[in-house]
Amino acid sequence: MNTALLYQPLNEVPDGFAGEHRYVHVIGTTVFVDDRIDDEGWPRHFVGIVEGIGWWAVDVPAESPDPSYGAAVDLRNYFGVASAAEWLAAGRAVQTAEWARTHRFCGRCATPTEPSPGERGLRCPACGLLAYPRVAPAMITLVTRGPDGPEQEALLARGANFPIPMYSCLAGFVEPGEDLEGSVVREVQEEVGIEVDQVRYVGSQPWPFPHSLMVGFRANFVDGDIVCQEDEIVDAGWYRKDDLPMTPPEISIAGKIINAWRSE
Amino acid sequence: MNTALLYQPLNEVPDGFAGEHRYVHVIGTTVFVDDRIDDEGWPRHFVGIVEGIGWWAVDVPAESPDPSYGAAVDLRNYFGVASAAEWLAAGRAVQTAEWARTHRFCGRCATPTEPSPGERGLRCPACGLLAYPRVAPAMITLVTRGPDGPEQEALLARGANFPIPMYSCLAGFVEPGEDLEGSVVREVQEEVGIEVDQVRYVGSQPWPFPHSLMVGFRANFVDGDIVCQEDEIVDAGWYRKDDLPMTPPEISIAGKIINAWRSE
Repeated sequence: MNTALLYQPLNEVPDGFAGEHRYVHVIGTTVFVDDRIDDEGWPRHFVGIVEGIGWWAVDVPAESPDPSYGAAVDLRNYFGVASAAEWLAAGRAVQTAEWARTHRFCGRCATPTEPSPGERGLRCPACGLLAYPRVAPAMITLVTRGPDGPEQEALLARGANFPIPMYSCLAGFVEPGEDLEGSVVREVQEEVGIEVDQVRYVGSQPWPFPHSLMVGFRANFVDGDIVCQEDEIVDAGWYRKDDLPMTPPEISIAGKIINAWRSE
Repeated sequence: MNTALLYQPLNEVPDGFAGEHRYVHVIGTTVFVDDRIDDEGWPRHFVGIVEGIGWWAVDVPAESPDPSYGAAVDLRNYFGVASAAEWLAAGRAVQTAEWARTHRFCGRCATPTEPSPGERGLRCPACGLLAYPRVAPAMITLVTRGPDGPEQEALLARGANFPIPMYSCLAGFVEPGEDLEGSVVREVQEEVGIEVDQVRYVGSQPWPFPHSLMVGFRANFVDGDIVCQEDEIVDAGWYRKDDLPMTPPEISIAGKIINAWRSE
């Protein structure tokens, strides 16, 4: 899952860069990618290099006419037409534009912020508070029960916010003051009332909805009966590899973890 | 490194909780822990349970006289007198107080925020923007060169911001749009000009200075000569296990990773 060689996240155009440029017009939270900027007056932020091409976020003001004439797509749908590296750059573009929009004023004293020289930061000229783009770490975990093999079952759940009847791993944001492994144990307990152990790292994935870093784990069932947290989980159950419900696509680390388990 | 069973991070006192309470008075960024609250009028935030005791952050207003009469200590120094779980709760208290102080106004429209019911959030009554306490993921990595054994060397660096001549692993914040492994490869390249591969997860640790989640890795040297990034790294070099400079204490994941490598 190492994306470093394909997409190089940067905040400034490197000295001597002579490549082409591509502009991710961020319209609300949708994107319209073009090789020219529609209006030179709109705020823009360099977001890095994909295969020799410089990528920019263009923050389309809310009151502007739609520069895409309806062609802008949700980031999830952009995945289908872009490479993985391009999709990451577009995700960073949306996050950067959204960050700039939501940090126009100082949270401590309400003074308008200014760009901080030499970095991607917004600084309060009155009290000095600095704001940087946020990355929110979240854990996602596949809990299994029983010895390895065809009889082993995985705990899959349908989240209350899933638009379709899909079943996935359990997930949740890491809280201040806990480590990743502690977050896995706590969230599984909270969401389905199950005790787990042997929490082990699988991999990670940036997830720009709106600014998460998903950290994937496997864990083993210890004890407990499934009791769903009503406002988070609609339904959850134990599933064998040969009898799985609809699961997420491979675009997500959840899909990757479930498919890897299925082919073990 | 699983802290979940010792410290339970929470945002509200659980129904029926009948334990004692402890109050982390947050004075600037220092802490004074007491079993009573000094002034009932000060803002407070529940931060969880440590061994049956409910812990609170008390946000001591900047203009108040010092309720600790000089006894408040820096979080780093509190580690020496508290258990690991108490230290995590105090870290969460500092983060929560600092978060509330820096999100008094909406970053999008400068309107004063209000608590969001049923969660630890501050909401703008005008535009609806919600702010949650931030956790910033950062990677920390020990790069080694050569086959396992006494001849193997580790890359240790003295950061520009280290107050003492200490050498540690390389570290840096994860950027939006990259995964953890990509962050390791990029930061090592940026900070010392070295190419690495075989990036592997070691463990994680919350680090409340001010709100980081440190994610620890090991990586293998591939190619390159050390060239330090001037503003970040004062000095860096390859060190054998029997000839190490001063390294961080075990309070930090860096100290744990280095000591684990030394005793391999």
